[in-house]
This record gives sequence, C-alpha cells and structure tokens, in this order.
Amino acid sequence: MRVAVFDSGIGGLTVVKSLISHKLFDEIIYYGDTARVPYGSKDQNTIIRYSLEALEFFNNFDVDMLIVACNTVSAYALSEMQSKAKYPVLGVIESGVLSLVDQNLPKDSEILVIGTKATVESKSYQNALRLEGFDNVTAVATPLLVPLVEEGIVNGKIVDEVFSHYFSTLKKPDAVILGCTHYPMMSEALQSYFGGAKLVHSGEAIVKWLKINNHISKNVQKSELKLFASENVQNLKTVASRWIG
Amino acid sequence: MRVAVFDSGIGGLTVVKSLISHKLFDEIIYYGDTARVPYGSKDQNTIIRYSLEALEFFNNFDVDMLIVACNTVSAYALSEMQSKAKYPVLGVIESGVLSLVDQNLPKDSEILVIGTKATVESKSYQNALRLEGFDNVTAVATPLLVPLVEEGIVNGKIVDEVFSHYFSTLKKPDAVILGCTHYPMMSEALQSYFGGAKLVHSGEAIVKWLKINNHISKNVQKSELKLFASENVQNLKTVASRWIG
Repeated sequence: MRVAVFDSGIGGLTVVKSLISHKLFDEIIYYGDTARVPYGSKDQNTIIRYSLEALEFFNNFDVDMLIVACNTVSAYALSEMQSKAKYPVLGVIESGVLSLVDQNLPKDSEILVIGTKATVESKSYQNALRLEGFDNVTAVATPLLVPLVEEGIVNGKIVDEVFSHYFSTLKKPDAVILGCTHYPMMSEALQSYFGGAKLVHSGEAIVKWLKINNHISKNVQKSELKLFASENVQNLKTVASRWIG
Repeated sequence: MRVAVFDSGIGGLTVVKSLISHKLFDEIIYYGDTARVPYGSKDQNTIIRYSLEALEFFNNFDVDMLIVACNTVSAYALSEMQSKAKYPVLGVIESGVLSLVDQNLPKDSEILVIGTKATVESKSYQNALRLEGFDNVTAVATPLLVPLVEEGIVNGKIVDEVFSHYFSTLKKPDAVILGCTHYPMMSEALQSYFGGAKLVHSGEAIVKWLKINNHISKNVQKSELKLFASENVQNLKTVASRWIG
C-alpha cells in the first residue's frame, strides 16, 4: 500500500516514525506545508483552504489512503478533505481518543488535552472524550511548546518554567493527550512532570487504529519514504534523518 | 501623504504606533500577512514571493510610500520590492543602523543584534554596521521571543530563563538592535537585563529617518489608520486598539 501523510510542517515526522517502526506500509509519501506553517494560530477558513490545496498535491500520486498527522487540520478540515478525496482520509483525533479508551481508565479519570490554540478551541478532543463517557476533561493551549521543540529545547529550566506556567494550577491528570505532533519530542520531560500519567502519542495511537482496522500492507520489509515540502525540503530531510534515522 | 505599512503579521503595529504618535502622515494603510506569518523561519525565495504579493495588494491604493516594518522582509526582499514598486519603499534595517550611528557611540562598542533566524542569517544588520565602522557585532537569532510576546509573556521567570539561554555567554553589549517588530513589546525586560545598553527600536528609528529626510506630511492633526490582513482582520484590530489605543 502507498499511504500519504500530510502535516502543516515537520512535526508529522513523529507519526511517520511510528508507521515505519511498525512496518505498516510499503511506501509513505509525506507532504509538509513548511512555507505556511504553523496552522495552529490560523483561523478555520484558512486551515480548510490550505488543507484542500494539500489534497491537490496528493492527486499527483496514486495513493491508497491519506493520514492527516496534524491535529489542527484533523480538528478543522477532516470532513472537508474526506468529502473531496477519492480515498480514505484518517485524522489523529479519533484514533487518539480510541487509544485512550483502549487503556480502560475509569470514566471519572482526569484527562488533560494539550494542543495548539486552534485545536483546543475546536473542542474536537473534548467532545470526542465526553462521547466516550469522560467528563473530567481539561484542555489547555500550549503554543510555546512547538517553538521550544523547534529550538531543540526539550528539557531543562526553560521547559520547567513553561510547564509550570501552563499546568501548575491544574488537577493532577491521569492521562495526557499530546494533541500536537511536536509534543512527543518532549515526552520525557512531560512524563517526568506528570508522574505516572499515561501519555497518548498520535503516532502510536494511529498505528493501533490501523492495526485494529486492518488498513495495513502485508509482509513489509522496509517502508520507502518520499519527502515533499512547500519550501525547504532539505530541512525536512535533515530533520527526518535526525528523528527517524 | 498616504503611507503604506507592510508586515508579515501584527508586529508592525509597533512601527505604526511610532508613526501615529509623532503625527507623520495623514493616512496609514496597514497590511499584515497574518495567514502566512511568521516569515522569520522561511527561506529567501518564499519571503520574496510573499512580499511581492503584498505589493500587489497595495496597488489597490494610491500610496505615496511603502514602509516595510518587518525586519525579515527588509533583509531579504527590499531590493525586489523597490524594483517593482512605483513609489519609494523603505525598510527598517538602514534606518535602524543610522539611528545607532546617530548616537555617536565609540566605534569599538559591543553591538548586539537580535532577530529572527532569517534576519540574522541574512547578515544585513551585521554588514551595514561594519560599513559604518562597528567591528564588534554579535548577532543572535532569538525565535522564542515572538511566541512569548504573542502569549502576552513579556517579563517574569520564563523570560529571565530565555534571556539567560540566549545571552548569558555573550559580552555585555553597549547597544542592542531590536531586529524584529515584536521585541519593543519586551523592551522593559530587555532594558533591565542589559542594564545601561542603548536599545534601538525600528519604529523610533524610522521616525528619525523620515524626519531627517523630510518624507512626512505637514500639519497632521490625527493620522487615519486603515487595517487589512490576509486573515482574521478582527484580531489585528483588537491588538491595534490594545497597543495603539
């Protein structure tokens, strides 16, 4: 199978890393809209317009499925993309919520969702979690985390102060949904800050969903990865070799 | 006179604030490319392409001059804009350097330039300062400052840790060029961190340049400000009323 992965920038490579390490597909075509990243602070109409333009990009390839790695696009533009595409389009929000449900936490658990301003304001995670019976859901926009990850600052004093700024007044969560593809790069510091809370990572969640629903290739030896970007594809390749190897 | 002001987003409002408080123009037309901000991490071709598209926007108005408030655009796309425009196009780098020269600092002063990754990599400030005889120039990309300002975090522990991250190993500067339109919003904390160093603010520098070169309207009672954005003009208006009043 040839699967397409779309992200607003480089962050979706954390999802690609999971797809590759679980050997799910023969070929992965990645497109990052690096010329217009980030989407998380833009408004809904702009996010939809840019996402539909990405669909046009993938029309150049004969893909079997599209995975939207970006939480912001999954929150705002998924149904528009599904109605326009000739193949299945899968977002990370539904799979993230199902991955949490799969862990059999008590329904009165404290769930924390962190993401971009747009993802949090969309209430997509909050609504999906409430439909699954979780009533104690808190969502916090944490826009400083992406620039920190992009600066390579994933632990230490600045990170501690930023976590304290966002989280110090919250109840201790039982689970934290990492609602942005950059956040897994900070998962050690997050796990340390939140103690024993379960962290939900979009890449691992989507792998679980794909396996359950049997949307995978058989007998993959090695996934071939092709990288495209709306600008500076060289930087994308550099990051990919650092993150994925 | 009707002057156009272009910025990649909302930051250029700090320049508009200076133009208005000094009553330099009858009318100011501001355009922020909020749908594609930030430019500071994009590559040169993209910055030039987006900047020329902004010129097309201003063709709808009969403007007498264009001020490029964005340091990144001033560093990469100014000559391309000047060659395409039918009116003078003024950037913030030349005026910032002249404003520093005007303060008669000794030529062996330590000068620190802070800005986006793109502005620092362009070496525009560094080269212009060396042409004026300043040899002790250090330039540091400080990409965390813009998201902090946009989060409303302009002082306190996080800011202290971030300053320490970027600046603690540098020699104490005699002057600091704030090479990004957002940074004046943090000038109190920067002034406190750098002690008696002179801070150069693009908005005040450009006012000085315009007065010296007599590119201003006469007898302005009140500047009329018209705001346009490639998305979410309402947010731009909200920020303008908070910053400018």
